[in-house]
Amino acid sequence: MKFSSRIEACGLSPMRKFAPLAAEAEQRGVHIYHLNIGQPDIATPKIYYQTLKKFSSPVLSYAPSNGLPEMLEAVQHYYAGFGVQLEQGDILIGNGGSEALQMLLACILENGDEIVIPEPFYPNYATMVKLTGAKVHPLTTSPEEGYRYADKARVEACINRRTRAIMITNPGNPTGAVLTPQELKLMLDVAKKHKLFLICDEVYREFTYNGEPLMSALQYEGYEDNVVVIDSVSKRFSACGARIGMLISRNRALMGHALKWCQTRLSSTMADQLASAALYSVGSEYFVAMRKLYRERRDTMLRKLREIPGVVCEEPKGAFYVMAALPVDDAEKFQHWLLTEFEDRGETLMFAFGAPFYATPGKGINEVRMAYVLDVPQLERAMDVLAKAIKQYNEQK
Amino acid sequence: MKFSSRIEACGLSPMRKFAPLAAEAEQRGVHIYHLNIGQPDIATPKIYYQTLKKFSSPVLSYAPSNGLPEMLEAVQHYYAGFGVQLEQGDILIGNGGSEALQMLLACILENGDEIVIPEPFYPNYATMVKLTGAKVHPLTTSPEEGYRYADKARVEACINRRTRAIMITNPGNPTGAVLTPQELKLMLDVAKKHKLFLICDEVYREFTYNGEPLMSALQYEGYEDNVVVIDSVSKRFSACGARIGMLISRNRALMGHALKWCQTRLSSTMADQLASAALYSVGSEYFVAMRKLYRERRDTMLRKLREIPGVVCEEPKGAFYVMAALPVDDAEKFQHWLLTEFEDRGETLMFAFGAPFYATPGKGINEVRMAYVLDVPQLERAMDVLAKAIKQYNEQK
Repeated sequence: MKFSSRIEACGLSPMRKFAPLAAEAEQRGVHIYHLNIGQPDIATPKIYYQTLKKFSSPVLSYAPSNGLPEMLEAVQHYYAGFGVQLEQGDILIGNGGSEALQMLLACILENGDEIVIPEPFYPNYATMVKLTGAKVHPLTTSPEEGYRYADKARVEACINRRTRAIMITNPGNPTGAVLTPQELKLMLDVAKKHKLFLICDEVYREFTYNGEPLMSALQYEGYEDNVVVIDSVSKRFSACGARIGMLISRNRALMGHALKWCQTRLSSTMADQLASAALYSVGSEYFVAMRKLYRERRDTMLRKLREIPGVVCEEPKGAFYVMAALPVDDAEKFQHWLLTEFEDRGETLMFAFGAPFYATPGKGINEVRMAYVLDVPQLERAMDVLAKAIKQYNEQK
Repeated sequence: MKFSSRIEACGLSPMRKFAPLAAEAEQRGVHIYHLNIGQPDIATPKIYYQTLKKFSSPVLSYAPSNGLPEMLEAVQHYYAGFGVQLEQGDILIGNGGSEALQMLLACILENGDEIVIPEPFYPNYATMVKLTGAKVHPLTTSPEEGYRYADKARVEACINRRTRAIMITNPGNPTGAVLTPQELKLMLDVAKKHKLFLICDEVYREFTYNGEPLMSALQYEGYEDNVVVIDSVSKRFSACGARIGMLISRNRALMGHALKWCQTRLSSTMADQLASAALYSVGSEYFVAMRKLYRERRDTMLRKLREIPGVVCEEPKGAFYVMAALPVDDAEKFQHWLLTEFEDRGETLMFAFGAPFYATPGKGINEVRMAYVLDVPQLERAMDVLAKAIKQYNEQK
């Protein structure tokens, strides 16, 4: 039996590849600080469970393929809150932002096509792009420049006749970089000039820490055909397990094509759409409290990381990740060692190893992405464990 | 902006294309008998809602990418009930059988590849195949032969060096054909001989009406590398809106590749996996009652259809669809007319028009698939409405 060359080209997720080794370590009684997955530890608003409790329907039928009206209305209302008027036809509900992205890429990419993505980027982007037969054209950024990429000449140098789109995450995963309104406008102008989609993954929209005026790409006029936004309830409401996300665009031709995908898989889940719609009723105080909490965590992780000799990292402005270069030969090997050979008082830690965050071969080998999704005391201890592990790993070699 | 040639080649679902016109008709006060979608009207077992009610977790986290342990165990237990021993690594949970199929096809198909599918087939198969860049090689069947296709010479005539798999639905959608154990063995032997996957969509497993000894492809020994089963809770438990399905295979290389897809979209929904796992606790009396009910419906629809002059159809042995040739020029045009110009005492009906059930151009133009998912009085009335509509449609032309 033969497998597709596309799936052969894909690897397991760097966030999840070591899950079996982690399970073994936990069975040995080792406690693991999980900094590998962007899984918030914040309590999910109770309204989610209250809505599930009330849900009852004699027949659990398919939802409409484009999305449940309640969910579409909740998204409209949320966006109207910062001045973005959406029609229901501008929104498709997916099984998480992940499926929203899968359906989008199926509409715009195929063999030989290219998509420009600033690197480091969320590794699942690369897997999804590979599965279409297209490839990522990386726009390399560096921590020394604060991972900034909105430079006309640099972006245009990545564009060729096979380019179909530019994809950005704002605020950035894994970098935490936040585009200024001017930078976002520049990206929009480049996309429009070259007749490209500008795909903005805005799932971390509520997570900025320095008072940056974060703009959604949907707030700019005159780019209706270019802008595509990926959104999700996962991070915003600490509801990753709901698997409810959105594809949003005013490009009706695009949405017409994406609807074909939606119809092909019939619908998203009924219960989770209802309960996710209810999540949007939480007040803005929820986000204010969350930002304060994450800011403390970011500051803690950054301070502790900078105390470890040889670690290089930038202050993230948003999202909840730190990308850091560690003084080790290979972060993937180091992770393997952390799960199989190391422990400090019965504890170890996990991160996402860096190479899959880059499309450029050889980059990111000694880098890691760590999610600050634990409370401050746990983060402090995790960073102490990391410091000891780095020392021991380098000594035993 | 340019779209992928693949998505351009896809159409809207024949089951859902007319949903907007249906909504308009309903707004005008017209009642529609929905025979277009395989959406059972049977009550969903209460245990689904009871499980949702009890579900509470401080943080709604991602489920494991391969599936929630509770769900995997429920599937293992169900299969063990008819002698199929599965390991958890043989099972991946998807967002419906639809996503299970999407991930499977991503693993085995790419540009230029072919997959053999007996036609008429479930139209979403073709859309999913097109999105991989591969194409359906149809194995044409006819109502005169009871839609049977398990003939070695006929199957082998469809296989060439680009063939990667044979895909069958058993019991058949839309044909209702049920493979005999000998026929299924023949299909397995052909697949094995030619080193192909045999993909068996068995979501209608519990729906057979004449006491046929229905076998799962997983019950045959010696085909472990070839057999892939698609399964789902949707039809079995009248739980279409849960969107929980399964990819099942003992081919570990395949499952390793499919896990990459699973990790890329992170996980399936937590609540619906828990509640779907609970559905498997219903006793066999549930299926016995359901079969009795659907058998009455099948017999009703068949009897009424055969009273309409010019209608040609075969008795379906399983699933809950009838494929019928109507005495009209074009079933798609007829459907449009039914929703925009026709009504009988304020009522009309919907079916799935036939052409998209075929890959061979020109076939199925005057055919329709009707799902017998309404109660007997409603089906009788719907068939009366159909008879009147056919007469009036042909008179006014």
